[in-house]
Amino acid sequence: MGNITLRILARELKLSTATVSKALTNSHEISEKTKQRVLDLAQKLNYTPNPYASGLRNKKSRTIAVILPEVADSFFAQVIDGIESVAQEKGYHILIRLTHESFQKEQAILKDLRGGRADGILISVSSETRDSSHIRELQQKGIPLVFFDRVCEDIETAKVVTDDFDSAYQATRHLLQRGCRRVAFLYISPDLSISYQRMEGYKKALADHQLSWQLSDMVACTHDPVANHRILTGLMSRAHPPDGVIATVEKLVTGIYLACQELELRIPWQVKVIGFSNLPSAMLLNPSLTTITQPAFEMGKAAVSLLFRELEGKPISGEPMVIPSVLVVRGSTAL
Amino acid sequence: MGNITLRILARELKLSTATVSKALTNSHEISEKTKQRVLDLAQKLNYTPNPYASGLRNKKSRTIAVILPEVADSFFAQVIDGIESVAQEKGYHILIRLTHESFQKEQAILKDLRGGRADGILISVSSETRDSSHIRELQQKGIPLVFFDRVCEDIETAKVVTDDFDSAYQATRHLLQRGCRRVAFLYISPDLSISYQRMEGYKKALADHQLSWQLSDMVACTHDPVANHRILTGLMSRAHPPDGVIATVEKLVTGIYLACQELELRIPWQVKVIGFSNLPSAMLLNPSLTTITQPAFEMGKAAVSLLFRELEGKPISGEPMVIPSVLVVRGSTAL
Repeated sequence: MGNITLRILARELKLSTATVSKALTNSHEISEKTKQRVLDLAQKLNYTPNPYASGLRNKKSRTIAVILPEVADSFFAQVIDGIESVAQEKGYHILIRLTHESFQKEQAILKDLRGGRADGILISVSSETRDSSHIRELQQKGIPLVFFDRVCEDIETAKVVTDDFDSAYQATRHLLQRGCRRVAFLYISPDLSISYQRMEGYKKALADHQLSWQLSDMVACTHDPVANHRILTGLMSRAHPPDGVIATVEKLVTGIYLACQELELRIPWQVKVIGFSNLPSAMLLNPSLTTITQPAFEMGKAAVSLLFRELEGKPISGEPMVIPSVLVVRGSTAL
Repeated sequence: MGNITLRILARELKLSTATVSKALTNSHEISEKTKQRVLDLAQKLNYTPNPYASGLRNKKSRTIAVILPEVADSFFAQVIDGIESVAQEKGYHILIRLTHESFQKEQAILKDLRGGRADGILISVSSETRDSSHIRELQQKGIPLVFFDRVCEDIETAKVVTDDFDSAYQATRHLLQRGCRRVAFLYISPDLSISYQRMEGYKKALADHQLSWQLSDMVACTHDPVANHRILTGLMSRAHPPDGVIATVEKLVTGIYLACQELELRIPWQVKVIGFSNLPSAMLLNPSLTTITQPAFEMGKAAVSLLFRELEGKPISGEPMVIPSVLVVRGSTAL
């Protein structure tokens, strides 16, 4: 078939390219009869507008870019489903771009998007992101942006988050109420605002139970399962190991279960475990896992809905939208 | 800052826009000294090329589109990681587009890509895809395309698959060797070539053990967990329920474990289970899950490497590349 261009359509129909172009974009300047002739031939010849050329003309890509660290975490996979459920209705395409937790990659992706490949952006920043000037530069181009889950607190725009302080507070209190006296807090990305909020919730729950927090009980893990295995078997082999563990990142659940299995520590009798996770298999683990379940699908829906409000020029609130997480009690914290 | 265009750079440097453009694309026609002047000012003014305009000029987006049904399955999440590991080295961006198993959506995405938004395409087709004319139309535009995992057999192009026939044969034989006499085969998408291959492998293993296959033991499931729950509790409540189950799609593992839990059927004593799954938590399920583990990361790497060969104009073999899966024996098929 080859490329059918506007010019060929115009030649075949004995019209100017401007007229054909206006007919294809349903301009009021063109008669219905002419529009129908153009559309009929365009369909017959299977005409596809060149996105670069039409992007230049109408400055609309009907595309939303979703930037996030990874898709292997069930939280992010479910956020994407929530975003798509709304975008599809509005006739928008979704582009997914992954930073793999690299600040440099995030900068490159945002720079690439500055030129107008997407009408709007949804972002959950990488764990390395400490500087937000790359986001500011994008905003200066007039491209609307909404944060979800991992936000830059110094950027003024719509944000959708969950109650990280309260979730960690609830998780810690639950362990203390079930008799734990030494609760370890596992995290990966200390610079993320969500990590900070969760740490503060953890400390507050300890304080409310007249316990002081110990730096050695707040355990920094990594994205590498081999390194985590070393860190977590180290933690559980201490002279005074924790009797409660909160894994604030889904991938750390596997690590702590394996470490306990290897060291023959029985969950929940010798140590109780809570994981931040949305995995459907949480209830099938041995023992079934008590979770903080985050409202991932709803957060995706809310974030893209706020973005559409911005795209439609409607006002949005300056306050972050907070959708609460839920503590689901299962076997790993049984008495 | 506003938009710094080629024209402004040219005016500031007292050069023609053509010269500036050639300098920015490192043309041999321009002296090193002039290139340096242009690059210095472009950097100083934070110049971003308009992707639409530069796409029109050089017809290269340095972008690869990855089209797949979903990211909630650990197989696809790991394929993406494999693709990115190679693309990043080559300085290419990855765009991820999801079909959510809809043929209509897959058509719309491919139509959108015909105009040149991506230099090449990696695709695993939706479960609804029976017709491949949308892929042919893309090929006619000269955009290279490589299939991974779920292929259209009638399209001639590079393909990366795993040994679905052999995997299902191995899984079935393993269950028969462990004493099962009635093995159920759970699937979702009957029209996919991978489903067909797996069914044939299952039937062949039964035949090699002098057992004939029963239509009622090949159980069609869905993407809806509620419907699957009904189907699987129905299966396991039959007068003569299966004593072995092969879940050929990861999401069906949760369904069959829950059905057994609810009906108080003990795995592996009353029924043995194998799942096609790459989930790290397989080993932590209760009981730990025997899996067919697919070479997802390697398949992603191989598919994108073949695409780069095509983009570089090198010849590629017409035969599908087959990377074998592995049977990992765990508690759910213990004697």
